[in-house]
Amino acid sequence: MSFNSFGHLLRVTTWGESHGPALGCVVDGCPPGLALSEADVQHWLDRRKPGGSRFVTQRQEPDAVRILSGVFEGRTMGTPISMVIENVDPRSKDYDKIASAYRPGHADFTYDAKYGVRDHRGGGRSSARETAARVAAGAVARAALGEGIVVRAALVQIGPLKIDRARWDWAETENNPFWAPDPGIVPVWEAALDAARKAGSSLGAVVEVVAEGVPAGWGAPIYGKLDAEIAAALMSINAVKGVEIGAGFGAAELSGEENADEIRMGNDGPRFLSNHAGGVLGGISTGQPIVARMALKPTSSILTPRRSITAEGEETEVRTTGRHDPCVGIRAAPVAEAMLACVLADAKLRHRGQTGR
Amino acid sequence: MSFNSFGHLLRVTTWGESHGPALGCVVDGCPPGLALSEADVQHWLDRRKPGGSRFVTQRQEPDAVRILSGVFEGRTMGTPISMVIENVDPRSKDYDKIASAYRPGHADFTYDAKYGVRDHRGGGRSSARETAARVAAGAVARAALGEGIVVRAALVQIGPLKIDRARWDWAETENNPFWAPDPGIVPVWEAALDAARKAGSSLGAVVEVVAEGVPAGWGAPIYGKLDAEIAAALMSINAVKGVEIGAGFGAAELSGEENADEIRMGNDGPRFLSNHAGGVLGGISTGQPIVARMALKPTSSILTPRRSITAEGEETEVRTTGRHDPCVGIRAAPVAEAMLACVLADAKLRHRGQTGR
Amino acid sequence: MSFNSFGHLLRVTTWGESHGPALGCVVDGCPPGLALSEADVQHWLDRRKPGGSRFVTQRQEPDAVRILSGVFEGRTMGTPISMVIENVDPRSKDYDKIASAYRPGHADFTYDAKYGVRDHRGGGRSSARETAARVAAGAVARAALGEGIVVRAALVQIGPLKIDRARWDWAETENNPFWAPDPGIVPVWEAALDAARKAGSSLGAVVEVVAEGVPAGWGAPIYGKLDAEIAAALMSINAVKGVEIGAGFGAAELSGEENADEIRMGNDGPRFLSNHAGGVLGGISTGQPIVARMALKPTSSILTPRRSITAEGEETEVRTTGRHDPCVGIRAAPVAEAMLACVLADAKLRHRGQTGR
Amino acid sequence: MSFNSFGHLLRVTTWGESHGPALGCVVDGCPPGLALSEADVQHWLDRRKPGGSRFVTQRQEPDAVRILSGVFEGRTMGTPISMVIENVDPRSKDYDKIASAYRPGHADFTYDAKYGVRDHRGGGRSSARETAARVAAGAVARAALGEGIVVRAALVQIGPLKIDRARWDWAETENNPFWAPDPGIVPVWEAALDAARKAGSSLGAVVEVVAEGVPAGWGAPIYGKLDAEIAAALMSINAVKGVEIGAGFGAAELSGEENADEIRMGNDGPRFLSNHAGGVLGGISTGQPIVARMALKPTSSILTPRRSITAEGEETEVRTTGRHDPCVGIRAAPVAEAMLACVLADAKLRHRGQTGR
Repeated sequence: MSFNSFGHLLRVTTWGESHGPALGCVVDGCPPGLALSEADVQHWLDRRKPGGSRFVTQRQEPDAVRILSGVFEGRTMGTPISMVIENVDPRSKDYDKIASAYRPGHADFTYDAKYGVRDHRGGGRSSARETAARVAAGAVARAALGEGIVVRAALVQIGPLKIDRARWDWAETENNPFWAPDPGIVPVWEAALDAARKAGSSLGAVVEVVAEGVPAGWGAPIYGKLDAEIAAALMSINAVKGVEIGAGFGAAELSGEENADEIRMGNDGPRFLSNHAGGVLGGISTGQPIVARMALKPTSSILTPRRSITAEGEETEVRTTGRHDPCVGIRAAPVAEAMLACVLADAKLRHRGQTGR
Repeated sequence: MSFNSFGHLLRVTTWGESHGPALGCVVDGCPPGLALSEADVQHWLDRRKPGGSRFVTQRQEPDAVRILSGVFEGRTMGTPISMVIENVDPRSKDYDKIASAYRPGHADFTYDAKYGVRDHRGGGRSSARETAARVAAGAVARAALGEGIVVRAALVQIGPLKIDRARWDWAETENNPFWAPDPGIVPVWEAALDAARKAGSSLGAVVEVVAEGVPAGWGAPIYGKLDAEIAAALMSINAVKGVEIGAGFGAAELSGEENADEIRMGNDGPRFLSNHAGGVLGGISTGQPIVARMALKPTSSILTPRRSITAEGEETEVRTTGRHDPCVGIRAAPVAEAMLACVLADAKLRHRGQTGR
Repeated sequence: MSFNSFGHLLRVTTWGESHGPALGCVVDGCPPGLALSEADVQHWLDRRKPGGSRFVTQRQEPDAVRILSGVFEGRTMGTPISMVIENVDPRSKDYDKIASAYRPGHADFTYDAKYGVRDHRGGGRSSARETAARVAAGAVARAALGEGIVVRAALVQIGPLKIDRARWDWAETENNPFWAPDPGIVPVWEAALDAARKAGSSLGAVVEVVAEGVPAGWGAPIYGKLDAEIAAALMSINAVKGVEIGAGFGAAELSGEENADEIRMGNDGPRFLSNHAGGVLGGISTGQPIVARMALKPTSSILTPRRSITAEGEETEVRTTGRHDPCVGIRAAPVAEAMLACVLADAKLRHRGQTGR
Repeated sequence: MSFNSFGHLLRVTTWGESHGPALGCVVDGCPPGLALSEADVQHWLDRRKPGGSRFVTQRQEPDAVRILSGVFEGRTMGTPISMVIENVDPRSKDYDKIASAYRPGHADFTYDAKYGVRDHRGGGRSSARETAARVAAGAVARAALGEGIVVRAALVQIGPLKIDRARWDWAETENNPFWAPDPGIVPVWEAALDAARKAGSSLGAVVEVVAEGVPAGWGAPIYGKLDAEIAAALMSINAVKGVEIGAGFGAAELSGEENADEIRMGNDGPRFLSNHAGGVLGGISTGQPIVARMALKPTSSILTPRRSITAEGEETEVRTTGRHDPCVGIRAAPVAEAMLACVLADAKLRHRGQTGR
């Protein structure tokens, strides 16, 4: 990964600021001949789109994507696919009053420290609006993976409130605004989010993302490990502070016998008796589902005043009005899917390149 | 990161199998004119060296490093630094009986699935012996970072047993075989490890790695985020299943007010009142200590028999004799330091390249 | 270089087909705080724009650039600069009759051989229209280089007709439609081009590109050599079949005494008595002007019928109507400048990154 | 290409100085399961080895290669292949007297300008001894290409003396010390080289390198063009100042009708009636032989005194004794083959990765 690109054979470059005229991405290295339309991409963008419920930002963005290159007569051509999404509802004026103050928990201070200049409007490049471009790229990656591979994400925790994993039902993720796989948690989270918003506060979350159908053999030692690339991809998502694979941090508390997934012969080859590995051993896929989780901090854009300083070094207080997600984890679920799809598609192409399989 | 290399301007490539004649690395892009000797590198290798206590593998490896290029008359020349470490005590015969059986929890099966061929001796390329090369590279990275930046790691958890963070004392990490910063935990861990070994079992661990003295401004959006690169670097270490920055997974349970680090003016610039961010905001360093943690699974090389299959598809049981670390987390602490140092040195050079600062 | 991107710290990605809705580029890694406007970029695009004289294609393209990101209030922000140019005069119908026939000398056959699909309209991705995106990127690179470095190109040969180098005057390149530095050659070339067009033929050319003001020390051994990167950058331009540095192919005919540039001390440091090296020794700049040349084949889009086959394997004849440059070398001069500027700007940042100078 | 590595999926990193203890390379990304032994690599190294005739340097280097990783039981494992060659006959003392003087035409001055430090012994990293590592890497690349692809080079010009192309016979290149495909030129070149040496002078050369059996479809637009990567690969070879593909610089003097290779249907698909393209159109292979040429300057290590300066800025004269090739082009032929093989093998893997073919 380097600056604003990631991936190797399937390489994604994104660009755009929150309140600039547009944002977008270039997806290079896509296999040729795949069916792809703007509607295919829009399908995934609509899932991440703001304004869908009272639990997400009220900014009204259609997030309508245009494909400007790389697709001809409904098929990918192997050439770079450029996609653009216009920003239509920026309301930049909301940010004038905080132009010079560094919002605590945001990247305002660090951008200034790095670059000496900064687009203060809505966080500029550091805004989570950038993730729309990732979702568009993810749609291309899904086409490259093919229909046999299903990548989907669910919210498993908001604040300290966790789902009951025994009740996991993927179909439920489509029935509530939280991508919750456990319908029992939905009213609990609704109450928590309403309370947080009323208090001028915000909540963190944990997203779980799973890829099924990945064959054994993708990924590569040592610094191209599949889990290392997944870790980087998820950690690069706004507000993410932790990433784990399979048993993750819990693996530290298991014994060696508990943790190592035993193997028997099944009808179609090896059959693992558990999946603490999360589908990755030695950085290479095992054929089991790839399971990753990421923890997101509560958004720092809150109404409660916080102490800070200005770019000029004056002490001040910052209270973030504007329109914000009280729990950025919710809209991060489609982004996690997109990032996992991109990493896997790149791994597929690299594996095929090296081994011919 | 790509296959067996990582980093961009300071780029590390490692090579070597556990039981081959040697292993090593090439560090490219090192700034010229830095003082560097084999003794400087050996210092860090000795901290990771096996055989240091009864709690680590008894394989006797001197891990003596030779610098074959890139250093002349005690100074780096800006040209690639090649370092080689011979394997002197491999005892490959220990592995003959498991040549065809896939050890559960190891990469035996996935290497075969990927490559169709495999060096079964001691895990071949997937062995943690490869991390010696990382430590050697880390010594070069430390030279590139300069003396103002201190990178060090501590073990904060073995199995479910955590240190008391209130008693953290970095100096203590040099006084026990666990890199424990809390001397109170040492007898507890000793007892747990002795019990695990007696039971033919193993234990996981959590390592915390901290870099102090890093100025604000290193790292870069969006896919070159400092925390994304740290996540990949740590996740690429053998047995690591989870990585977090600052408050990490705990951040998901904090409120927005608790999590966002407030800022006041200090004598030398901004002064943060807490460090939930772990020294990184928007992927760019804040000037606070960089704080990361990684969770390691218990080693899968255990004496307790586990169900598995052979390469030919026969069901079997595997019981791993040979000489192994009962808790691979212990020797991972120097590796985590090395990886963080490498990521930071690369970030330093890239930041200087883009901004001239 | 990889697929549709080149450069390392200053990294350019281009996208777009000849007859798609638009083309463009993303320039990543640009230093922050540089003055840059759409007018600055447009200045360079206008020099490459078609329709400027009767000796270039009559396709009417305004090539108006829009900057969609990375620039705020007239300054670069260090974030990716996305630039888009719409295609407004494509006349795709001209190509319908040759949709299935492979034009000899063009990439029609090879794109089909590689991808199995192809945008036949105007060459699709293989069209020289893509070079507009390079020129836009070059404008950013010039900003990164600063005013002390002057990069400019001249046409030194059309067909077998060479300029008189003794009469070289850079100012003259602005006074004729050929970027000829020798006004004496202009009527000769005009006559040759008129004759070629009348004959349904086309002519090749040689472009010389020079960068003055480059300090000693840029570039790097061994595979990051400045001349290797210049060679790749120029060879990637449409129709280029040869690249040379300094004395180039002529160096093969010199004696060792003639070729090696002697050095004396000047007032400002070393003073070379000649520049057969073209400003590069060991892949690193000497402080002398960087001098490169590239040879372009005559365009294969000619009215004279040529034997070929169709995608279906039928033998046929191809006669290319449409609007084409009779000598693509003419409009390649601004492209060569842009590519050299991009390579140098990247070398500047990488050198600064590694050495701090 | 970046610093000391090149290639993407098949990635070569070289290291080592002329008079250091050893030099070598790491070849990453090699397909698994290929037969490869030290003898296979040695075969190609022996062709480049110094000391073979009176027309090359008398330095006695066995250039014996050791494979330290990536090969097990005679087969590649898909893991990085590390190869080392010891320097056994350095005679560094020859260089003491020129430690501070910059040899004209060499990289002494530019290395100092870049790095501020320099290994003066035999040119250090800038020495052509580094090319031994390329030849070793080329042997791996040949294994990756398979037996159907033949890559070979010939010397076509020494000084101004060109071969008679009508008499080209590849078999003859094995019968003379010059890799000359035309036996008639051999006595001419012998006389010229003897005269040059007697005069304390040196001669340049042109090498032609050809790959047969490459299928159509390798390489990729726009900055991954096969010819652009070949150009960089060849230009990175010591002393090379010019590179061309197919008709090359001569293409600039052809008419459009002459230059564009016409196509007919043959029994096995398209049949080109000529190969001015040198096997590459639009950056993608056509299925015809890939034909490239590179021009090498005469070595600057000559006995004739040349004016120069010292590192301290004193004017001086330099007369290079030591043991040197009077025409470095001769030993560059095996290096050109190796570089072309590496570029092609990488292109093969990347093509397969993207398209599955």
